[in-house]
Amino acid sequence: MSTSPEKPVTDGPKSAHVPRHSPKRVVIVGGGFGGLAVARNLRHEAVDVTLIDRRNYHLFQPLLYQVATAALSPADIAEPIRRVLRSQKNAQVLLGAVNAVSLQDQLVHWDGGIVHYDYLVLAAGATHAYFGHDEWSTRAPGLKTADDALEIRRRVLLAFESAEMEDDLEARRAQLTFVVVGGGPTGVELAGALREIAVESIQRDFRRVDTATARIVLVEGQPRLLSSMRDASSRRAREDLERMGVEVRLNTLLTDIAEDRVVLKRGDEQEMLLARNVIWAAGVRASSLGKTLGVPLDREGRVFVRSDCSLPDHQNAFVIGDMASFLEGRAGARVPGVAQGALQMGEFVARTIRRELTQPSAPREAFRYRDKGSMATIGRAKAVADIGDRSYGGLIAWILWSMIHVAFLVSFRNRLFVMFGWAWSYLAKVKGARLITGDRQPDVKRTAEF
Amino acid sequence: MSTSPEKPVTDGPKSAHVPRHSPKRVVIVGGGFGGLAVARNLRHEAVDVTLIDRRNYHLFQPLLYQVATAALSPADIAEPIRRVLRSQKNAQVLLGAVNAVSLQDQLVHWDGGIVHYDYLVLAAGATHAYFGHDEWSTRAPGLKTADDALEIRRRVLLAFESAEMEDDLEARRAQLTFVVVGGGPTGVELAGALREIAVESIQRDFRRVDTATARIVLVEGQPRLLSSMRDASSRRAREDLERMGVEVRLNTLLTDIAEDRVVLKRGDEQEMLLARNVIWAAGVRASSLGKTLGVPLDREGRVFVRSDCSLPDHQNAFVIGDMASFLEGRAGARVPGVAQGALQMGEFVARTIRRELTQPSAPREAFRYRDKGSMATIGRAKAVADIGDRSYGGLIAWILWSMIHVAFLVSFRNRLFVMFGWAWSYLAKVKGARLITGDRQPDVKRTAEF
Repeated sequence: MSTSPEKPVTDGPKSAHVPRHSPKRVVIVGGGFGGLAVARNLRHEAVDVTLIDRRNYHLFQPLLYQVATAALSPADIAEPIRRVLRSQKNAQVLLGAVNAVSLQDQLVHWDGGIVHYDYLVLAAGATHAYFGHDEWSTRAPGLKTADDALEIRRRVLLAFESAEMEDDLEARRAQLTFVVVGGGPTGVELAGALREIAVESIQRDFRRVDTATARIVLVEGQPRLLSSMRDASSRRAREDLERMGVEVRLNTLLTDIAEDRVVLKRGDEQEMLLARNVIWAAGVRASSLGKTLGVPLDREGRVFVRSDCSLPDHQNAFVIGDMASFLEGRAGARVPGVAQGALQMGEFVARTIRRELTQPSAPREAFRYRDKGSMATIGRAKAVADIGDRSYGGLIAWILWSMIHVAFLVSFRNRLFVMFGWAWSYLAKVKGARLITGDRQPDVKRTAEF
Repeated sequence: MSTSPEKPVTDGPKSAHVPRHSPKRVVIVGGGFGGLAVARNLRHEAVDVTLIDRRNYHLFQPLLYQVATAALSPADIAEPIRRVLRSQKNAQVLLGAVNAVSLQDQLVHWDGGIVHYDYLVLAAGATHAYFGHDEWSTRAPGLKTADDALEIRRRVLLAFESAEMEDDLEARRAQLTFVVVGGGPTGVELAGALREIAVESIQRDFRRVDTATARIVLVEGQPRLLSSMRDASSRRAREDLERMGVEVRLNTLLTDIAEDRVVLKRGDEQEMLLARNVIWAAGVRASSLGKTLGVPLDREGRVFVRSDCSLPDHQNAFVIGDMASFLEGRAGARVPGVAQGALQMGEFVARTIRRELTQPSAPREAFRYRDKGSMATIGRAKAVADIGDRSYGGLIAWILWSMIHVAFLVSFRNRLFVMFGWAWSYLAKVKGARLITGDRQPDVKRTAEF
């Protein structure tokens, strides 16, 4: 932990335009859970907050799989960042990509020019990683942004459409087989929701195929699903999924993806699966912004930070959320890559800055992650939750999960909409957002005769 | 009006596969208001209904402008065609484009192959037309599909973002100027909604620009707006728009569009307007499918039909909705290109087929359009409506408009969602779907310093 006070920066080379007594500028890169937490927790301070994001909206990522599976619209789980910060007078929002950070000069280079900072908070998150197989990205889209979710939704819906028009049995089977790679929360949630679509939502809409014959194969390299949760939850998730008809393959790796098939490997056994639909829910890699810093990164591209979330040689530069990797201390090392982790780091950094503005010489505290529990939903009235020392499953966990996720949604409007949509889906077993947008057409051979 | 009975088609050259006593097949191209009306009104008949559409959803086009202006999500006004027809056992849905129709052989050539028909109904609608200036399509997007609406939403939201980041006053003015071409219902509704966004929804979200300074210019070639409505409504719409701050230019044509400016022409006067945002709500052209028929078309590419909506030499082929142009009879000639017109033609054609199945020799009736009134909304609590011999304006017309449009939405779920969304927008003056999706980035010069 560092004890040296924040050095004033008004004598920096590029800060000639900044009047000596103007408020300090806090530049935040990224409007996710971490970045927004920093901004909002500085709302009463005499600082200039500048938040830069490539997208104009904050996304409630834990529900993104529901957009990908046609239950919600993107707007239901997104909120314009400007709107979140509209009444925070000390904050401004810039829309654009940050291309590089110069720690020496305290400058952020972004699409719209250069911004000088007194404090910097990097909270640009992570993207999915293909473990050295970037060529898989077109065949196996990942799920990180609203556009990713729309693309997956499009593919899922088109798969059923193409199956309906396909006469060749083998080709139809490939259209109706969905491989979800990665047995973390996103993979589990996607697999469960895909199975529900096939069995409950759309079965009666099709005439030639029985959509309930769709195979959902969930592939996980570890010996259990949800490896960050308790054993009991992992077991329960697997049982629930299998009871729903999802095929769970543990200790299994995906080793190849071709146009209409994938190759799975378990120990020495190889298996070829006819499948046209692959969704990537494995592995993440931190934002490439970290690379521009010229500081050491860990294997996943995350920036090593000290126990106060700052860079070792730059006390006024913080990295939080999925971009951060702790150098020291057991507490920090265990921060999981979830919303709670980013949120708590964001609150911590805001508190640190706040304190330093009034007590510049006070020693900094160390960040300590408070595990509030973790959960994953599996299907209608099915979820698992680890809270305190206990695991919960089934309806109770699902109600808990629903309440917590709805409560977390940023805006009131979204909260009501999502609740209403869920209540409706629960009662009517329908998915409300089954649009295939984008101009690409279904994948149909021109031979079928109707 | 034709009186000859429908000729059986089981002896046609390509119908060898069709058993002699199998039910007659009705092929419908297009799942809009017209096509769906045909399908649903044949639900109790012993026919095979096959509906082909390029998109998997029916779109409630009258509310599309609300998607373009970020008030609704596409899924709020769309319903999968399969879902609409899910319990209609005699109907199947094919997703794909129809490329040609062979009237002689009674075959429809589509992406998935060839379909034989006994009755054909073409209801493929219209697209926007640029009056010989197709090069304008990228600069001035039109509003016909969900993807069009998302593209306009993206541009509108990005325009404000770019203005926020623009230091040059002239360039900023161009970013904040929106030209809507066409003073029909879509143009009027877009102009009003854009003005409301600028003044009510987002003004407090921006720090550097006052979004209320945005200029909305509505350009109409005719001497009045809403030329299909009564004079009183046209006047009222213009007054309401001007009171809201929309600039209405009547008797004015758009003659050129460049990157950051448009040229308007009124009589001999030319005017150059700095404007980066142009939306096309003028002129339509019927689906190009009509061209494959080898029959005469009118100037807008619509197919000439007889008073029973059938083709002159092919009594078993009907054309309805925006694709149809009546050859004879005053009643048909006045059918406006709105949902009601397509809907009524669809019901009429279904009735005609139904009757012919039981009374093959009965003479056909002539289609007669029943004008149930027309309306356009202008803004919050502002609309105009012509019903019977009267014109209505203001809050009363707006309530009427809201009720009718909500009632028309196909599904119950959508109905509740849209009502809720409207109630919320009305009370809170917000727009709920302000996402910029798609990967393109804002248009920013790299010179601004923050």
